[in-house]
Amino acid sequence: MCNGMTGVSPKIGLGLIGSGFMGKTHVFGFATAQRVFDFPFKLDFATVCDVDEASAEAARQSFGFRRASADWRSLLKDPEIDIVDITAPNVLHKEMALAAIAAGKHVYCEKPLAPSAAEALEMTEAAEAAGIVTQVGFNYLKNPMFALARDMIASGELGEIRSFRGVHAEDYMADANQPLTWRHDPAGGGGALADLGSHVLATARFLLGPIVSVMGTCKTLIPERPTAAGSRETATVQTEDVAQAFVNFENGATGSVEANWVATGRKMQHDFEVYGSKAAVAFSGERLNELRFYSMDDRAGLQGFRTILAGPDHAPYGDFCVAPGHQLGFNDLKAIEVRDFLNAIAGQGLVGPDFREGYEVQKLVEMLYRSAAENRWISLS
Amino acid sequence: MCNGMTGVSPKIGLGLIGSGFMGKTHVFGFATAQRVFDFPFKLDFATVCDVDEASAEAARQSFGFRRASADWRSLLKDPEIDIVDITAPNVLHKEMALAAIAAGKHVYCEKPLAPSAAEALEMTEAAEAAGIVTQVGFNYLKNPMFALARDMIASGELGEIRSFRGVHAEDYMADANQPLTWRHDPAGGGGALADLGSHVLATARFLLGPIVSVMGTCKTLIPERPTAAGSRETATVQTEDVAQAFVNFENGATGSVEANWVATGRKMQHDFEVYGSKAAVAFSGERLNELRFYSMDDRAGLQGFRTILAGPDHAPYGDFCVAPGHQLGFNDLKAIEVRDFLNAIAGQGLVGPDFREGYEVQKLVEMLYRSAAENRWISLS
Amino acid sequence: MCNGMTGVSPKIGLGLIGSGFMGKTHVFGFATAQRVFDFPFKLDFATVCDVDEASAEAARQSFGFRRASADWRSLLKDPEIDIVDITAPNVLHKEMALAAIAAGKHVYCEKPLAPSAAEALEMTEAAEAAGIVTQVGFNYLKNPMFALARDMIASGELGEIRSFRGVHAEDYMADANQPLTWRHDPAGGGGALADLGSHVLATARFLLGPIVSVMGTCKTLIPERPTAAGSRETATVQTEDVAQAFVNFENGATGSVEANWVATGRKMQHDFEVYGSKAAVAFSGERLNELRFYSMDDRAGLQGFRTILAGPDHAPYGDFCVAPGHQLGFNDLKAIEVRDFLNAIAGQGLVGPDFREGYEVQKLVEMLYRSAAENRWISLS
Amino acid sequence: MCNGMTGVSPKIGLGLIGSGFMGKTHVFGFATAQRVFDFPFKLDFATVCDVDEASAEAARQSFGFRRASADWRSLLKDPEIDIVDITAPNVLHKEMALAAIAAGKHVYCEKPLAPSAAEALEMTEAAEAAGIVTQVGFNYLKNPMFALARDMIASGELGEIRSFRGVHAEDYMADANQPLTWRHDPAGGGGALADLGSHVLATARFLLGPIVSVMGTCKTLIPERPTAAGSRETATVQTEDVAQAFVNFENGATGSVEANWVATGRKMQHDFEVYGSKAAVAFSGERLNELRFYSMDDRAGLQGFRTILAGPDHAPYGDFCVAPGHQLGFNDLKAIEVRDFLNAIAGQGLVGPDFREGYEVQKLVEMLYRSAAENRWISLS
Repeated sequence: MCNGMTGVSPKIGLGLIGSGFMGKTHVFGFATAQRVFDFPFKLDFATVCDVDEASAEAARQSFGFRRASADWRSLLKDPEIDIVDITAPNVLHKEMALAAIAAGKHVYCEKPLAPSAAEALEMTEAAEAAGIVTQVGFNYLKNPMFALARDMIASGELGEIRSFRGVHAEDYMADANQPLTWRHDPAGGGGALADLGSHVLATARFLLGPIVSVMGTCKTLIPERPTAAGSRETATVQTEDVAQAFVNFENGATGSVEANWVATGRKMQHDFEVYGSKAAVAFSGERLNELRFYSMDDRAGLQGFRTILAGPDHAPYGDFCVAPGHQLGFNDLKAIEVRDFLNAIAGQGLVGPDFREGYEVQKLVEMLYRSAAENRWISLS
Repeated sequence: MCNGMTGVSPKIGLGLIGSGFMGKTHVFGFATAQRVFDFPFKLDFATVCDVDEASAEAARQSFGFRRASADWRSLLKDPEIDIVDITAPNVLHKEMALAAIAAGKHVYCEKPLAPSAAEALEMTEAAEAAGIVTQVGFNYLKNPMFALARDMIASGELGEIRSFRGVHAEDYMADANQPLTWRHDPAGGGGALADLGSHVLATARFLLGPIVSVMGTCKTLIPERPTAAGSRETATVQTEDVAQAFVNFENGATGSVEANWVATGRKMQHDFEVYGSKAAVAFSGERLNELRFYSMDDRAGLQGFRTILAGPDHAPYGDFCVAPGHQLGFNDLKAIEVRDFLNAIAGQGLVGPDFREGYEVQKLVEMLYRSAAENRWISLS
Repeated sequence: MCNGMTGVSPKIGLGLIGSGFMGKTHVFGFATAQRVFDFPFKLDFATVCDVDEASAEAARQSFGFRRASADWRSLLKDPEIDIVDITAPNVLHKEMALAAIAAGKHVYCEKPLAPSAAEALEMTEAAEAAGIVTQVGFNYLKNPMFALARDMIASGELGEIRSFRGVHAEDYMADANQPLTWRHDPAGGGGALADLGSHVLATARFLLGPIVSVMGTCKTLIPERPTAAGSRETATVQTEDVAQAFVNFENGATGSVEANWVATGRKMQHDFEVYGSKAAVAFSGERLNELRFYSMDDRAGLQGFRTILAGPDHAPYGDFCVAPGHQLGFNDLKAIEVRDFLNAIAGQGLVGPDFREGYEVQKLVEMLYRSAAENRWISLS
Repeated sequence: MCNGMTGVSPKIGLGLIGSGFMGKTHVFGFATAQRVFDFPFKLDFATVCDVDEASAEAARQSFGFRRASADWRSLLKDPEIDIVDITAPNVLHKEMALAAIAAGKHVYCEKPLAPSAAEALEMTEAAEAAGIVTQVGFNYLKNPMFALARDMIASGELGEIRSFRGVHAEDYMADANQPLTWRHDPAGGGGALADLGSHVLATARFLLGPIVSVMGTCKTLIPERPTAAGSRETATVQTEDVAQAFVNFENGATGSVEANWVATGRKMQHDFEVYGSKAAVAFSGERLNELRFYSMDDRAGLQGFRTILAGPDHAPYGDFCVAPGHQLGFNDLKAIEVRDFLNAIAGQGLVGPDFREGYEVQKLVEMLYRSAAENRWISLS
């Protein structure tokens, strides 16, 4: 799939769509991944696209691409491009991804995969039929502390898993003067649940596996917002500020989820707690290098939640730094995400989350919206 | 109501029913309250009752009462007794309380007030008709940090209140070998929700006011337990290990509640977070002398959750210790509870929680059980 | 030693000198100890003394003593009094204690034992010669978490002890408008080192054993203070606001100590960290129910400081509360201190700190003052 | 100074000496800086040197340099190279830096600048005479939270500064089986004090300014170590495991410093606390995105240490991520360090730490060694 894989220094070409903040973050991820990890090919930052030509050219220079383009379709025909990386608004994801898949490109797409589960499924099935590699940008899952928690759960260290509590709360919509955005338009996929709750659902699945039934509730706490920054004209907010959910897992555990973008004071409260019959783990998103762990195997009188600091014992931390406690940052997680994607392309196994996982999360989001609208539990079938 | 209130040293007589752990805690509360606070009367530790005569006599000596009795009804006719303090099993609360009310005694009763809301209401109406003072033992509410949080909410410091998250999780039932108790018998009032969830509901009402609708779910995660300690015989568990709830408040806020007695590693996770349009507060039960507070009024770049340590600024901390940061303990909260009860008897205003508040909490517990059984939202009216 | 020990209900009589805050705290300790623990005798709150007759009488009523007196010497001749409890200013400690010892009373004395080591030694030798029981009020040492730390060190759980870091910082003198007190008069024993540093030295000895050499430095950061509250007249401050020390332990460990009463924001930073070859413990005075513990025996990748919450595993917590995580308070520690004193009187073994330990701490304080004045290391022998 | 600065896309050429871990970290810093920040020139990764030719070639490919060399002197004559970046062992720093300075190159050198203050001063004076830009790699100083703390101190937010407490403790030498390294040879500059204490001294100076007198003590707690990994042969350790210091600042504040590399459980305890007359700040190296702040200006009853989370308000965080709370990592700090160096080269002002600052820190380290050896206070002048 990569051009020149047989040569001494095979290249893999990257085409990026979108030059905004997420585009920059992806470039950071690719560049860092290449320096930190070993791959059997070298990245070629081929083309960056943006609808605005000047933005594309500026990004080309600043991001270090060889070419700029205002036409994302130009990537599809370019034989030097192996990867199409989509950081455009999510209403465009499907069209772009389907075209890239049809052109045989590997596709890396920001979350959420699509505004609806049906679209996400269409994208997933197309990708699977084409045999290309996909990835969705749930980068919190790439935290080595998440891998540690998941491995402890999977290995039975926690015993039988009993309950999960997950929250993703921020306050970036807490100010009632914050104007309406596309996130307040239901056509974009929804409010706090779609935006932040999807992260918690992805985390829940990552750690505990499939969710089989859900009950949700949504609430819009700021009913009116300005139509634009500083505007005195307001309009009705149509998406939720807070969503809460009960979830039941296939493994028998029970759980709760909260998504909240008006949680004054919270900047990255992507927190979870998992309780098992033998042990428990807890995580706070504002301290991403720490996992708290309580084990009933510890001696009586000496039991307590211990704070495990990320270090070389927690791969791939050691690729970034040889000493523990020095801490990874948010951008480093993106580099790990890129690593998993590139390794999958190199045939070293799929780690995901791929499009199918993006679809599964989207399906849960939709189930929760339906549950909230109909005030009833909904089972996966 | 108190005998001899006109004299120099009027007395108020205490009759205690129950000499177990909670009885001891109440005695601690009365004794400490008397030393720490000023009252217009002196406590007379008159009679302690226990069905077991030997236990009653042992308690008399150890707790410092003048008389012991195996007949709780003896308290009713004793003119030296002004207060009947009930720490007996909660299935007995109603009979004892109604008799004490009929005898014109003030009644202090451990939580939950009664196994059912109907019984709690009957007790409440009898007490109100008799004009006696009542109190229910929700002692977490007596934490000065709770008063601080409530006052900040009431004064508008937090702005419009938007959301509440409350948890009470412990792990005292986490061991599947822990045998069945009366808490596993639905006739006792219920499982984790009745036991621990009632505390969260009391806290939620204390801070945010009335709850108008609820949606709940209950789950028994340990389906079988030994019938007795060490027994190989097991029986089916009939009450829930975990309960989750969505709650809507009269003031427009949304909230969630979790009660969990199998949360491995948690000893006193009575935690809450309250988010308002201007500020937020958060509390952890395992650190009862701390309240975390975030204010949008703090200067940009210097905002953050601050940890307020209990001190003399937070009455009645200063009655226990003149210096901040020295910390109150669980038992001290019981002394504050007693203070409020005695002050109400002395005519200095009712702070509560009284029987009516106990009834309101019990009503919410029942609504949640019905909601969980019927898988639907239930509104108060 | 106790009058009536042969009877069914032997009594032990208490005479308290001082009715201020510490007096109240001691009464709280005696009263609570009697309810929480079992002793082979009953406490008789015989007489409370205060130089001011009205204060003594008020204390009699409020504290629940049988008699009040303005003459502390009256306690000495009273055969009903077994214990003389001294909470008067520390310049009076020696005279009172020596008289009480001469009268054959057991003596409980607030810290510091005396303004000078010489006086403390005189008191110690008199007490030892008389064979009476003594105790000094270093109540932080009574925290069950301290006992846990000391036992872990003593049992070899931490391996060879290598280093100690201890701090006691508060901010009650941080305001430069805070007027001069007896603590600013060197005759009272010294400043932050004598007041707060003595606690750290007591803790260091409690945990690691004897200190063999010290090097100290003292600094007065607020050179002038008002002579009285609100006064515009100021005078030179003659005691230190901050003291720092290096200490070497007999066991080979190295350590540091800081005492600081102008540490803005600190209310009870009585913190310590002890590092051993196999494990470490850390404690923060503002969270007295927690001990942090790191063990190299924990599995690689799962190591971290764990927070042990005080509970029934940590005697005598269970005498106060049957459930873990409910938290003891500052006043409860005083009750534990009283327990140890009463148990020693009952012949159940000396726990201390007794007068000799009070002397040892005072000796270190003086060595540090001398070291600071002479800018040199000082060894014990 | 830069070749081609007049053109549209001027370049600045980088020559790196050393291809080990620090070399990789520096490359990460340069590469990330270039993507994250804007500079008036483009970096040219010209040549990487390593004494081992194969290592140099491997680094060339992996780090993305154009040329590899086994001869660091080749950089000096290369007109395409503007910057010489030294990550070689510190005994080589002086020779390399003096040669680079003589060749008119800007010099970026890892800490410590040199094993002795005399050498550091020679390097400093040569650089200043040549007018080239220098920088020493004290990257902790580049944390936006450090800048925040320093700015608060400088602006008077904390009032008069009274005391400083600084620690750098790790446990990477805690295992007595850890063999001897160059750090155990005094010729390398010293032990824990030179290695870790230098960071605390740099932090102290960064925050509070010049230190005018010091008193130190050093202790070797593990007297013998294996001469090589797994070897049964041991030799005497000649550098200290723990160093403690008292320091007095020019501004009148007092302080203490601890360096400890056998602090079991500590991975990055680079902690400081600064107390002023109006406010205080505290920092923990294991949570590099947080600064704790206590202000007496907060309302009574609502005061407490607040945790400020790094965000876009704390430049240059926003260049890495648009949202607060997402967290920077250790490697990101290196990119900020590079930014300051490149900006200085571009004539946008010197931020440092430059060679002179490296010399000042080294001078303090030496003063402390002398103080410890001679058991006395040493003043700067």
